[in-house]
Amino acid sequence: MQSLYRYLPILDWGRRYDRAALSNDMIAAVIVTIMLIPQSLAYALLAGLPPEAGIYASIVPIILYAVFGTSRALAVGPVAVVSLLTASAVGQVAEQGTAGYAVAALTLAFLSGGFLMLLGVFRLGFLANFLSHPVIAGFITASGILIATSQLKHILGVSAHGHTLPQMLGSIVENLGQTNWITLIIGVLATAFLFWVRKNLKPALRRMGVPPLLADVLTKAGPVAAVVVTTLSVWAFGLDARGVKIVGEVPQSLPPLTLPGLSSDLVGALLVPAILISIIGFVESISVAQTLAAKKRQRVDPDQELIGLGAANLGAAFTGGFPVTGGFSRSVVNFDAGAETPAAGIYTAGGLAIAALFLTPLVYFLPKATLAATIIVAVLSLVDLSILKKTWGYSRADFAAVAATILLTLLAGVETGVASGVALSILLHLYKTSRPHVAEVGLVPGTQHFRNILRHKVETDPTLVTLRVDESLYFVNARFLEDLIQSRVTEGCKIRNVVLMFSAVNEVDFSALESLEAINHRLRDMGVGLHLSEVKGPVMDRLKQSHFLDELNGQVFLSQYDAWKTLTKPNRVQAAE
Amino acid sequence: MQSLYRYLPILDWGRRYDRAALSNDMIAAVIVTIMLIPQSLAYALLAGLPPEAGIYASIVPIILYAVFGTSRALAVGPVAVVSLLTASAVGQVAEQGTAGYAVAALTLAFLSGGFLMLLGVFRLGFLANFLSHPVIAGFITASGILIATSQLKHILGVSAHGHTLPQMLGSIVENLGQTNWITLIIGVLATAFLFWVRKNLKPALRRMGVPPLLADVLTKAGPVAAVVVTTLSVWAFGLDARGVKIVGEVPQSLPPLTLPGLSSDLVGALLVPAILISIIGFVESISVAQTLAAKKRQRVDPDQELIGLGAANLGAAFTGGFPVTGGFSRSVVNFDAGAETPAAGIYTAGGLAIAALFLTPLVYFLPKATLAATIIVAVLSLVDLSILKKTWGYSRADFAAVAATILLTLLAGVETGVASGVALSILLHLYKTSRPHVAEVGLVPGTQHFRNILRHKVETDPTLVTLRVDESLYFVNARFLEDLIQSRVTEGCKIRNVVLMFSAVNEVDFSALESLEAINHRLRDMGVGLHLSEVKGPVMDRLKQSHFLDELNGQVFLSQYDAWKTLTKPNRVQAAE
Repeated sequence: MQSLYRYLPILDWGRRYDRAALSNDMIAAVIVTIMLIPQSLAYALLAGLPPEAGIYASIVPIILYAVFGTSRALAVGPVAVVSLLTASAVGQVAEQGTAGYAVAALTLAFLSGGFLMLLGVFRLGFLANFLSHPVIAGFITASGILIATSQLKHILGVSAHGHTLPQMLGSIVENLGQTNWITLIIGVLATAFLFWVRKNLKPALRRMGVPPLLADVLTKAGPVAAVVVTTLSVWAFGLDARGVKIVGEVPQSLPPLTLPGLSSDLVGALLVPAILISIIGFVESISVAQTLAAKKRQRVDPDQELIGLGAANLGAAFTGGFPVTGGFSRSVVNFDAGAETPAAGIYTAGGLAIAALFLTPLVYFLPKATLAATIIVAVLSLVDLSILKKTWGYSRADFAAVAATILLTLLAGVETGVASGVALSILLHLYKTSRPHVAEVGLVPGTQHFRNILRHKVETDPTLVTLRVDESLYFVNARFLEDLIQSRVTEGCKIRNVVLMFSAVNEVDFSALESLEAINHRLRDMGVGLHLSEVKGPVMDRLKQSHFLDELNGQVFLSQYDAWKTLTKPNRVQAAE
Repeated sequence: MQSLYRYLPILDWGRRYDRAALSNDMIAAVIVTIMLIPQSLAYALLAGLPPEAGIYASIVPIILYAVFGTSRALAVGPVAVVSLLTASAVGQVAEQGTAGYAVAALTLAFLSGGFLMLLGVFRLGFLANFLSHPVIAGFITASGILIATSQLKHILGVSAHGHTLPQMLGSIVENLGQTNWITLIIGVLATAFLFWVRKNLKPALRRMGVPPLLADVLTKAGPVAAVVVTTLSVWAFGLDARGVKIVGEVPQSLPPLTLPGLSSDLVGALLVPAILISIIGFVESISVAQTLAAKKRQRVDPDQELIGLGAANLGAAFTGGFPVTGGFSRSVVNFDAGAETPAAGIYTAGGLAIAALFLTPLVYFLPKATLAATIIVAVLSLVDLSILKKTWGYSRADFAAVAATILLTLLAGVETGVASGVALSILLHLYKTSRPHVAEVGLVPGTQHFRNILRHKVETDPTLVTLRVDESLYFVNARFLEDLIQSRVTEGCKIRNVVLMFSAVNEVDFSALESLEAINHRLRDMGVGLHLSEVKGPVMDRLKQSHFLDELNGQVFLSQYDAWKTLTKPNRVQAAE
């Protein structure tokens, strides 16, 4: 029963559902629904799919997340970065506008959902940690630039293609002659309006005495206003006949039952992108969920979140959608509007279903330029190049990871960019730990403490070298220690004993064990003893399972002071300052 | 001048060269030369090249290593594992026996030499550390099995091909009908004789009163005896006319001047194998060099070794050779025979040059089966499956890395095997550090020490949680800490302060910094303070470069005891036992 509650969180909050929660959830649902209609159409456009796909992707996935997810406020659906990744992945296997394209998007959602489910069931959510914060920040920033650029063609009313910045810009410049001036005017005005709404409307409304929540809702409804005004203009002046591209016919229907294509070619081509989309979507979603949960001292379970998002994506795959995840802006609106339980999501789904059934004829004359404008304004808020400055000041390794991720995402595409960022941050981490800090220490006079001989005035002994290793020992730094000890011992002829102080060593892997054995043999060949001190319990347990301690050409001392007392008696001298 | 000595170690030992060293080096050179002649022919056969290539690869490379290398005893030339890797890489771009095959082998040596040089000049020798000891051990064992299997065809006198164990065995079984019985008899007798020599000759000679060094040399000369006897047999009984495959004509010549092929196709196809060969060769060589150096309290410089091995491979590329490295058995013989300086290598090269000029007609009738027997006996000593047992007892992660390396090397080939082993050991390490040990600690009564509340009887306070983090914080475990703190704090309603004890944290990267900021914000939202204690100097320096400390919803305490005194005053209670 306990585990049923874990896998079906709805059983937990559903039992305690009351009238107050119902009314709060309903209000939140209405607000979110209004905001989601233009957003869903826009992200479908970004993903290269027909507009209704965006609405379908927001109905069943929301309901499934409400059943399986653990966040109270997360709103699941199409988001900008995942839509871009979808366009990039599906564009490689099918032509936009064909039936194959839509099927490939379903397959991508299916694979992504399956992968998330697997991670959740096997509790492998930690894999998402391989995406470091700088890599994510760099990737989101570069994606924002790519997405905004990809929408320029709709603003200009030209056709263009490409998945990297140079390709897109080149293609736009090439076709600049086809610019449709009416489209451009609509696009520029809509963009300017939306920027103004985002930046100035809320303070203006507050000054006019509008209560904060309403001001917030009106601000978020900016895109709806832009949609209404531009749609009416196109209809009134017949601008579609003058070359303004419009959304056109959108079927009036509930989400259809669809089947993802599962041919081995298609699966093979989309598997890696699906894994990437899953992990990036999960990272975005879990960050939002944890931030919102903390505000109410609730918690989310990352492994159960994987199952919730997996279910949502599987739902998208069978109901005409495309890959989805928990979005930042819609979740914040949901939270701010007072959603108390995932039931708010279910009501939102209901609202969208009504829209899909009855409201789609209203967007027939909606210009694509308006949708492009809402996308541009939304994603440019993601672009934050300050991460470059912040990481530069903090750590050059992190800076290198951000810079490489941004550059490669822009110049070589989203998949290459994020994969290189991950590989680089792992390599840089391994490099850092490959040369651990090792301090030669001596006794602080009058105490039992040992400190770095380079920083402190300490007692030493010419026959004894004590090295404090400030890192776990494993294969990447095992040989470093061998080299270090060999070079330290060959430079001092009087050395008779080496002590390794293990107070900061949390692990000794098999490679490091073999290095310690090699060090032991070599020191024995030189007539030098090897000792250990302050070995932690778990490390000692491991060492006892090997023959190292039997063969050790020296002793293991509980404390470094014991080692000092035993090994230096006749030779102690005062250190030079 | 100092740096000239560093890059040209010959200037250092050359100045002090005297008559005693000369005579010792000469004796060692004669012994090594005799051993190297059959070995060179055999490894050329293994690499799929004509026999003279093995001798050429042992002349100029030895001289160049003597000039640039830092080991006094290392003997450079073709070795079994690198020859196998050569056959595998070159076999993918050219047909064995063609001119293109020989050129590709030169290209491989050139690329490998260039890559080693680059690593040496940029002091990137640490990259070799990514090969963990278990991966190397597994790879060498699997390679030994593959090499021995690849030589079975010469023992049976059948033709066979393939680069994986199933391919080779399948191919041999298919052609078993063509077995040449005389070849088989020669091969089996030679193999049995060599095994007997290796196992029993030395003790037998010692019992007969032969001095140890001479006994050792006679044992190592076993392959020479096998070569002489089988060559004479083939010549005397005309066995080559009865289908026994022989070495045949070998040109009488000094190493020729050759040029590696540098077409972009060839370079592209061989670049990755060349990198692999370089790193594996370097790892083998540096282990031998360090072991021998330690016996005389000398040291080798790993970065200069890269330059020495790089020069040797470039030399091989321009003089009709193939990739080389420092070999274990030849180096040990050189060392045991009393070589004092790299000059011994130069004399060995002279001996081999004389052999190349005058002795090659003597091996005309040498059966290939004899060479195959010497290879089999040599490489089976590399096969050591005990590594599986040893790592199983010590650590399951290391066991998984060994097992995967062995299986994939045998079943999918050498490159896949070693690459998978490296990837798996990195992933397992990241996994281990992704869930660091975090202990909740309390005060040991009557002291200022804090210990794990699960293991010790300590004082705690319901309003205070102190977590000791036993690992550096970086992107792989940053989110783990977020989850841990969030779940710990949400389960206790009285908690008002969280202290993170940083005594074992050697690094906080940018991802971990952002996680700490997120933890700080979330705890503030919950009305809980976040404090740090015992932060190390370098970590504190880093944190001061960020805004974290300004925004910290709490304090940084020098010692955990200070934190305890400040935060618990009114609430202290005795812990339940």
